[in-house]
Amino acid sequence: MNEKIEKIIQNIKPINFKLMEEAQEKLDKLTKPQGSLGKLEDFARRIVGISGTLSPSIKRKVILVMAGDHGVAEEGVSAYPQEVTFQMVYNFIRGGAGINVLAKHIGAEILVVDMGMAKDFPLEESIIRKKIAYGTNNMAKGPAMSRDEAERAIIAGIEVFEDELNRKGIDIIGLGEMGIANTTSSSAIVACLTKSKVEEITGRGTGIDEDQLKNKIRVIKQVIEVNHPEPKDGLDVLSKVGGFEIGGLVGCILAAASHRVPIVIDGFISCASALIAIKLAPLVRDYMFASHNSVEKGHKIALKYIGKVPMFDLSMRLGEGTGAALGISFVEAGVKILTQMATFEEAGVDNKSS
Amino acid sequence: MNEKIEKIIQNIKPINFKLMEEAQEKLDKLTKPQGSLGKLEDFARRIVGISGTLSPSIKRKVILVMAGDHGVAEEGVSAYPQEVTFQMVYNFIRGGAGINVLAKHIGAEILVVDMGMAKDFPLEESIIRKKIAYGTNNMAKGPAMSRDEAERAIIAGIEVFEDELNRKGIDIIGLGEMGIANTTSSSAIVACLTKSKVEEITGRGTGIDEDQLKNKIRVIKQVIEVNHPEPKDGLDVLSKVGGFEIGGLVGCILAAASHRVPIVIDGFISCASALIAIKLAPLVRDYMFASHNSVEKGHKIALKYIGKVPMFDLSMRLGEGTGAALGISFVEAGVKILTQMATFEEAGVDNKSS
Repeated sequence: MNEKIEKIIQNIKPINFKLMEEAQEKLDKLTKPQGSLGKLEDFARRIVGISGTLSPSIKRKVILVMAGDHGVAEEGVSAYPQEVTFQMVYNFIRGGAGINVLAKHIGAEILVVDMGMAKDFPLEESIIRKKIAYGTNNMAKGPAMSRDEAERAIIAGIEVFEDELNRKGIDIIGLGEMGIANTTSSSAIVACLTKSKVEEITGRGTGIDEDQLKNKIRVIKQVIEVNHPEPKDGLDVLSKVGGFEIGGLVGCILAAASHRVPIVIDGFISCASALIAIKLAPLVRDYMFASHNSVEKGHKIALKYIGKVPMFDLSMRLGEGTGAALGISFVEAGVKILTQMATFEEAGVDNKSS
Repeated sequence: MNEKIEKIIQNIKPINFKLMEEAQEKLDKLTKPQGSLGKLEDFARRIVGISGTLSPSIKRKVILVMAGDHGVAEEGVSAYPQEVTFQMVYNFIRGGAGINVLAKHIGAEILVVDMGMAKDFPLEESIIRKKIAYGTNNMAKGPAMSRDEAERAIIAGIEVFEDELNRKGIDIIGLGEMGIANTTSSSAIVACLTKSKVEEITGRGTGIDEDQLKNKIRVIKQVIEVNHPEPKDGLDVLSKVGGFEIGGLVGCILAAASHRVPIVIDGFISCASALIAIKLAPLVRDYMFASHNSVEKGHKIALKYIGKVPMFDLSMRLGEGTGAALGISFVEAGVKILTQMATFEEAGVDNKSS
């Protein structure tokens, strides 16, 4: 594998489990019955293990929205035309999309990255330019991209993360994406890696009807048959049935874990990226939080496969990082519990009588 | 019933269902697949129905933390001594409790009310003083309070809400509480109103062991046997097996609904208050949002009884309004989606091709 990717993977260390025990001791001294803040306490404990400090602080929250087009869109797998990728990215830049609203709501910034849109973005517009190609190839006919392109997509993701980390710092990262037909790619990835039936992990994406769903399932089966991606080789899966934005997210995950920055998964597509990242570097798993359970059918199977329990289920299926945004806010709530609550001693409250 | 309560109840009108349909039309024009923000859209629609405007805005968020003591605490139903009610209220005022942290996290203010603590709060401390009595009577031996006291507790809740509404405005209210032994009272209320078995709705509260749980169940059965509260009469249930903080929350719910202000339920105790409020004025149901599903066993049954699906389950069981705080943030997110996202037309995005 590429040297830069190898190096990042080697830098990923286990989270600090010993410090997590100390975090629990600290949590147990706070003015509440032990364990009574449930998963908020889990989040706090895990952030301690990731960040390596008993007094973590989530100051700068970033949601990375990676965009790419998919050649397989020409097989009629989406309810929307391919142009919508570009148009929606424009909408992200202008601030009118769902992710803009929710990022602002939780106090996060978004970074929009062109990983491989079919059209070039006007030069005067502020977007991070990492285009690998003008959309992937139609993977129903052959590999989505070359192995070299897959590596370049991962490296681009690493660079985006590290550039931003060096420039302004990142305390938590949410994974967002945009790419018409990318649930098709994600279904192929998840079917392959979890060895699930295509029917079981294929959903309606942006909202296709029964006939379109049948077609989508047929296309995904063909995609797998034509490319026979090797489940043991994450890079092979990414190159044959992935997408540029998915590769970018994989790179971002690897980079975040190597810098001990917590990662919040959004929906089905970012979860597919998480599966590939875990395949490449199993230790990244502990750096990740699953935000929500989306409507997209395969998401639940993918989350189960990586052993993550989502924080909530609001029947969302928009992507863009919208679920991750709300999830980041929950993680932050947990961290504040750990760092801002008074102890029984400080507050002069009697602890449990029994 | 008392005239003031009667008047408030008469002022509660149905929410505006017609406007909710218009809200959905507005939501369907926003740059996202129709319905893809799931429950966030439901929240927005409902806030429109409650507030009566297509452009609602949640500016001032308030969490009301009502405190009261329970005579039944002397039966050994809690893991903590009664003094902890007072000590924790002190902690609320000082800003060191879970609800302080989470309210601040979501940008809400908290109002702490002494509805009937066993001790008086120092005069120099800033707390809303509505003490009905120095704790309820031990309801294992007779009614928790008189019918007159129950009415006065409700009226106090109405006054707290209306005073604050007049002073600074309230755009959404979260229901919080503190009172050692108040899960015992809530279990009695919920068992009575939902006609459930005591065993089914009695949990471990702040964290009692197996023997203490058996004792708690025995006590609750005795409470019901001694008082035989009448399920058709909400006021009878409140006075015989309720608490002053629970009565205060009932008043707050009635007042909020009468002023078309949305209400976010917290855990088991605030849900028991909701059951009584609905019994007194069924229309309040549509003004309420259920935030979380708590660990406390009877909460799920109570939520089901009033037909509310909680937004999330983080295995929390602290009360104080902590779940409501996070729920308010979700409702607010939904409202912002409705009011801040761009439409397909504004953003120049192609709508669904099919």
